[in-house]
Amino acid sequence: MNVLIYGSGQLAQMMYLSAVPLGIKVFAVNVADHTVVDPISKIKLDMSIEQAIDLADVLSVEFEHVPEDLLEQAQSSGKLYPSMEAILTGADRVREKNVLEKLQIGNSKHQIITHVDQIDEAVAQLGEKLILKASRDGYDGYGQWRLSNKQALPELKQQLAELDLQTVPLIAEQMVPFDRELSLLGVRSLQGDIAFYPLAENLHYQGQLHVSVAPAPAIDSQLTEQAQSAFTKLANEFDYVGVLAVEFFQVGDQLLVNEIAPRVHNSGHWSMQGADTSQFENHMRAITGLPLGNTQANGKCAMINIIGCDDYSTDLLSINNCHLHLYGKSVRAKRKMGHINLTGQTYPELAEVMTTLAKYLPIEHFPKLLDEADKLAQLD
Amino acid sequence: MNVLIYGSGQLAQMMYLSAVPLGIKVFAVNVADHTVVDPISKIKLDMSIEQAIDLADVLSVEFEHVPEDLLEQAQSSGKLYPSMEAILTGADRVREKNVLEKLQIGNSKHQIITHVDQIDEAVAQLGEKLILKASRDGYDGYGQWRLSNKQALPELKQQLAELDLQTVPLIAEQMVPFDRELSLLGVRSLQGDIAFYPLAENLHYQGQLHVSVAPAPAIDSQLTEQAQSAFTKLANEFDYVGVLAVEFFQVGDQLLVNEIAPRVHNSGHWSMQGADTSQFENHMRAITGLPLGNTQANGKCAMINIIGCDDYSTDLLSINNCHLHLYGKSVRAKRKMGHINLTGQTYPELAEVMTTLAKYLPIEHFPKLLDEADKLAQLD
Repeated sequence: MNVLIYGSGQLAQMMYLSAVPLGIKVFAVNVADHTVVDPISKIKLDMSIEQAIDLADVLSVEFEHVPEDLLEQAQSSGKLYPSMEAILTGADRVREKNVLEKLQIGNSKHQIITHVDQIDEAVAQLGEKLILKASRDGYDGYGQWRLSNKQALPELKQQLAELDLQTVPLIAEQMVPFDRELSLLGVRSLQGDIAFYPLAENLHYQGQLHVSVAPAPAIDSQLTEQAQSAFTKLANEFDYVGVLAVEFFQVGDQLLVNEIAPRVHNSGHWSMQGADTSQFENHMRAITGLPLGNTQANGKCAMINIIGCDDYSTDLLSINNCHLHLYGKSVRAKRKMGHINLTGQTYPELAEVMTTLAKYLPIEHFPKLLDEADKLAQLD
Repeated sequence: MNVLIYGSGQLAQMMYLSAVPLGIKVFAVNVADHTVVDPISKIKLDMSIEQAIDLADVLSVEFEHVPEDLLEQAQSSGKLYPSMEAILTGADRVREKNVLEKLQIGNSKHQIITHVDQIDEAVAQLGEKLILKASRDGYDGYGQWRLSNKQALPELKQQLAELDLQTVPLIAEQMVPFDRELSLLGVRSLQGDIAFYPLAENLHYQGQLHVSVAPAPAIDSQLTEQAQSAFTKLANEFDYVGVLAVEFFQVGDQLLVNEIAPRVHNSGHWSMQGADTSQFENHMRAITGLPLGNTQANGKCAMINIIGCDDYSTDLLSINNCHLHLYGKSVRAKRKMGHINLTGQTYPELAEVMTTLAKYLPIEHFPKLLDEADKLAQLD
């Protein structure tokens, strides 16, 4: 069985590693230069994308921002899982919001902005505290903007006037005073079976995921049901096959979908040690028609991203139940270099391991680690 | 960090897979044709063995029967772990017996046969029930012979008269009425730290390992101490670095060393799911100077070899906590095609999973599975 993955970064690498024992060979498309590569060595393979598609039994993606012409070619092969529609929905906030509304899944109040003057209406409808996001990523001059009060509106409109909002609209979202961020990863098989990992709690810093804890503390069945219901509606809507990640804001006892990622996801990396079957193996199982594996957590797990540094001590491996997952990249600011998985039987045990880990790390690059350990140490 | 492994079969493959997350790249020497290959795809890499040795930070082996000229070249690089001496000891029963005697480690009574007439003396010393083994494997006409009574002696001597016993001696061993076969895998670091996996119970059929159960049932501290003491003596004798496997016969409350394997070992494959750190990861950690990982078992684990068949149903993956590890080989009689790891919290739970697994398998190829499940089902 051969699988071709669009994208050749760490997610393709980890899919490759989990696929080999299942007898599945993974090749990857470097979408930047349209070459086919080995996902580990990144060595170019002597074949075109067309040849790789022919050779592959199944195609999949490691990220949603695959150029649309490549996705169309993949979709037309009839072998792409999840579907192009699901992938494009993850890549486009307007599509995403539309499907959330259609399926009546809770999300933050928003308006779509295709002309700068619509921002006035958004302020009237949603209030003066807004976050504006490009519907699609990767366009020059785009990013995210925050409006904190009406007084700042004229300046913001001036900034946005330069953009071609007809082509790349904005989403104006009501800023939500959320309690925390959670994500639900699940996997849907070719036959439509769904298996859920437990909810993970995610700690971000400057827009990047730094720490995930799974299972998330303080989850009741009502929260789990809300999350699983949203997931199931989305997965069934797309006749989805593979791992799907749904990120939520928790506001009191309500979950609002923040965004969906039609792929294996950083907030599921804990499953490599913390669950019987990792998200990577389950994605490979799903897209190749194999039965899904057990998604239950073994004890408690924390995933710590290594971002923008490589000057940690590998003696961290002397900590019991501490595993390193490096991506083979040279260091660069804000770059995800790898992650560390820690496990414990209880949250306080996990907290202790996290505190020990901190001694081996340049702690300025791990701003969320010790605070989270302190919190977990208080739990039962 | 680059590691060159001599041997390019499934053990090199599994070392490769466990090394990537540690930032270690593994290449392999195909010892049959002296090429350097990718351990997964087996694609030839564009480099000579000499170039690979230069590129590598560390060299190691996946099996002990590496041609001696290659081993000498590896040893002379100063980068080979474990040492050539340890590897050759695993490859030569005379060396092995000599070191066991020197270290006063219990093993079955034996004599070295370099001339066919010495067999008479062996019978006089050891009795008429003997097993004769070539000191080294892979020589034409050699194999194993059993003597059950004196009457068969003349015929046996006639058979053996053709062999050059000066060059490849035989070991005549007293046949031991053992209760069961156990193995101890452990790992010794560059700094001399040792970590032990729990003893595994091994079930053979026609000379091949079929099932391992770890931790082995009915092990008391006295047995564990015997095994760990033998391991420690051997490992320290060779200033050993890496994973070492010691196979034992259990006779009453005594352990006799059957053989030693200076490498990762089939009876340690259970550790891929059954322990926090697999034998493969620990071998890579040891030889590259990283701290050793946790070797404790998580619950109970069974490893089932898939030998000489590929007509099982992959629906076996629908069993909870069932993992497939395929080696990417075409089917051939007696060939190890892969293995299946099963885990459970208790032996009876594990037995139930084994019984369920049997439904997906061509059971004639798995002659030890159901009997062992029946035995485990009776345990606490």
